[in-house]
Amino acid sequence: MSKRIPERWYNLMADLPELPPPGLHPVTHEPLTPDDLAALFPMSCIEQEVSTERYIPIPEEVREIYALWRPTPLRRALRLEKMLDTPARIYYKYEGASPVGSHKPNTAVAQAYYNKVEGITQLTTETGAGQWGSALAMAGAFLGIDVRVYMVRVSYEQKPYRRVLMQSFGAEVTPSPSPDTKAGRAILAADPDSPGSLGIAISEAVELAMEDPQTKYSLGSVLNHVLIQQSVIGEEALEQMKAAGAYPDVVIGCIGGGSNFGGIAFPFLGERLREGRKTRFVAVEPTACPKVTKGKYTYDYGDTAKLTPLVKMHTLGHTFVPPGIHAGGLRYHGMAPLVSLGNELGLIEARAYGQLGCFEAAIQFVRAEGIIPAPETSHAVRAAIDEALDAKEKGEERVILFNFSGHGFMDMTAYQSYLEDGLEDYEYPRTRVEEALAQVPQI
Amino acid sequence: MSKRIPERWYNLMADLPELPPPGLHPVTHEPLTPDDLAALFPMSCIEQEVSTERYIPIPEEVREIYALWRPTPLRRALRLEKMLDTPARIYYKYEGASPVGSHKPNTAVAQAYYNKVEGITQLTTETGAGQWGSALAMAGAFLGIDVRVYMVRVSYEQKPYRRVLMQSFGAEVTPSPSPDTKAGRAILAADPDSPGSLGIAISEAVELAMEDPQTKYSLGSVLNHVLIQQSVIGEEALEQMKAAGAYPDVVIGCIGGGSNFGGIAFPFLGERLREGRKTRFVAVEPTACPKVTKGKYTYDYGDTAKLTPLVKMHTLGHTFVPPGIHAGGLRYHGMAPLVSLGNELGLIEARAYGQLGCFEAAIQFVRAEGIIPAPETSHAVRAAIDEALDAKEKGEERVILFNFSGHGFMDMTAYQSYLEDGLEDYEYPRTRVEEALAQVPQI
Repeated sequence: MSKRIPERWYNLMADLPELPPPGLHPVTHEPLTPDDLAALFPMSCIEQEVSTERYIPIPEEVREIYALWRPTPLRRALRLEKMLDTPARIYYKYEGASPVGSHKPNTAVAQAYYNKVEGITQLTTETGAGQWGSALAMAGAFLGIDVRVYMVRVSYEQKPYRRVLMQSFGAEVTPSPSPDTKAGRAILAADPDSPGSLGIAISEAVELAMEDPQTKYSLGSVLNHVLIQQSVIGEEALEQMKAAGAYPDVVIGCIGGGSNFGGIAFPFLGERLREGRKTRFVAVEPTACPKVTKGKYTYDYGDTAKLTPLVKMHTLGHTFVPPGIHAGGLRYHGMAPLVSLGNELGLIEARAYGQLGCFEAAIQFVRAEGIIPAPETSHAVRAAIDEALDAKEKGEERVILFNFSGHGFMDMTAYQSYLEDGLEDYEYPRTRVEEALAQVPQI
Repeated sequence: MSKRIPERWYNLMADLPELPPPGLHPVTHEPLTPDDLAALFPMSCIEQEVSTERYIPIPEEVREIYALWRPTPLRRALRLEKMLDTPARIYYKYEGASPVGSHKPNTAVAQAYYNKVEGITQLTTETGAGQWGSALAMAGAFLGIDVRVYMVRVSYEQKPYRRVLMQSFGAEVTPSPSPDTKAGRAILAADPDSPGSLGIAISEAVELAMEDPQTKYSLGSVLNHVLIQQSVIGEEALEQMKAAGAYPDVVIGCIGGGSNFGGIAFPFLGERLREGRKTRFVAVEPTACPKVTKGKYTYDYGDTAKLTPLVKMHTLGHTFVPPGIHAGGLRYHGMAPLVSLGNELGLIEARAYGQLGCFEAAIQFVRAEGIIPAPETSHAVRAAIDEALDAKEKGEERVILFNFSGHGFMDMTAYQSYLEDGLEDYEYPRTRVEEALAQVPQI
């Protein structure tokens, strides 16, 4: 196996000047114990959730699977630099190179591995458009674990591409709400035609895991162990930037739950904290779902049904329903506690963009570099281009690194809307946010 | 730029024991002169068409663009080997790593470059499902040449994904038949609802190129210069197999017009011819369109409307319409003259498969290795698996190399048919073939 695949993940908890406050039990509001989480997650992930070790070894079997697509390329976007006529150097880490086309398998494979080691035979999860579901479906196929995905019904019906990909891996994909669970049946009783939501799908997946000791639940973002497992991106990028003879002045990623941003940024942020470097970190969110730039830093639930623990994070309120932007993966109301804390500490900037400007940037990128970005990724592309234009205005040789979290081959209907049908932009939905924030528990 | 990107293409014409007979003018049936081709192709490509030089330097600007995705990975399918429990070693060259997801850009970029050097400002072409059209659209965006794609109307309407990708690159995509051309208008006059065909779309693209000296035509397969430009695949694979400490006993590719097969096979075939190696070469076609296994080796036209030159090749007849298999890229009636001659000389085996067995192999591959093959590529996967199973039966440590010509992210409806709706298999359409072969000119 390639020696260039990192042997360890990086854990920002080792270097932050303070630790994030503990998660709280959803009913008692007491600090969570490992036992509270044991019904949902394998012990190795629970240990990572609270670990303050700087480095955590990547199991050999996980590295062997990573070797199918890792290390992912670090590329310099020379043609884009020329198009923008900028003195900046733009690098991107191409996570679209994974078999399912995004960064999600980095943690899916790790989670499936730890579950397998602990004797678990089935994993449940939820998925919206299907990026996370297809990553877990692949991991399950590789490691011999059954995967059951609750897919938001409206996506299940309107976006068959990723559903079929999950099924190709052998996963069972169920439209949510479903009659399988109490949560699903309750929703269906009230509204037999419910289009579903991520919140409902989470409730269904969690319910099944709680009921069967051979089944656990898997989450694709937000939690500390997920961000640790995504740090393989940044660990590789550290080495690759060194090999390229450059060090980033700014590191950029889009944020839905925070895992691709944390994955590329935290290893560099660790160097800033330990070595006093001046690198900036820019997390990019949509104006339609601006949790960090407009939300509140407070304890909130991860799901609509209040089944998950409360974590301290930037949130728009667990009842917030964002407008229907194409970047479905950025439509989450909350944020990874580690990204939120980094922002509170002044280490991480946040920036919000409307989708029109992001698609415009994506089209520039595809014409310069050839790869079509996922709508989520287009937010990082927009920020990278803006940094390059700012550097041009100031005459700076800024070194920009962004995470190209996924390709858009399965999102071409979004580009069709942009190119052919006209595309609505979404402003900050102030009233909806105010209403949802009023529902956040006072803790 | 990476030194690992080949500096030269390989030309099989230098090593074959005999040369393919000349192309003939479509009207006079006289051997073609360079002048006959000059209205359609740039002089550099016409020179390559008849060159017997073993190596042709790759222009620096083409290598710089290749560097966006080349060298493509050569991977050993260790997990597939384990799944099959075979002593064979299975390697695949992953051409799906290109920005548009297939091998097509290797020649699209070269052709656009040569046209640009000769002052051409617009390229026309045809496309079926859109793999070739999107490759040329990308090349045009990179090199500043307008690209006009005539897309078979039924695909234009039913497969918007690749159309939108072409438009994202800035290409003009027109459903064919169109009112733009005499050929299109004639068809529309007879049948205003014509679904179109590749033959009609070729006629439209060729007609436009013939009329405007600033416009030329670009073809994505079949011709010698296309296969030369695809040899970058095999040149890389030669080096990569050497680095892996292995040499293939068998090299496999699927065949539509022959360019991805020729691209990987010919550099190895050259070594067999020069050095007496025993490597076998297997070209895989669908039973629904079995030009090499069931067709005739004779002079025939490249298009339905008899506008193109006649070339000596395996053909099912230029009027042959294959059944609607999902591997649209393998539905061409003819074959590259160099592949046909190689088969006649006993250097290249051909094999035909039904689509059901190919999808079954593709599902095995995706569950072992994670990448979803294009339906075309699934034919090569089927052959590679069959070789591995044969090696297992015989207890041989066979080294298998196949070309993974493209990923299937934009072909998930084909997998949906296979997994959900049941999928028709197609036998050899004997009557259609006999009728079409009766239309082939007697030369």
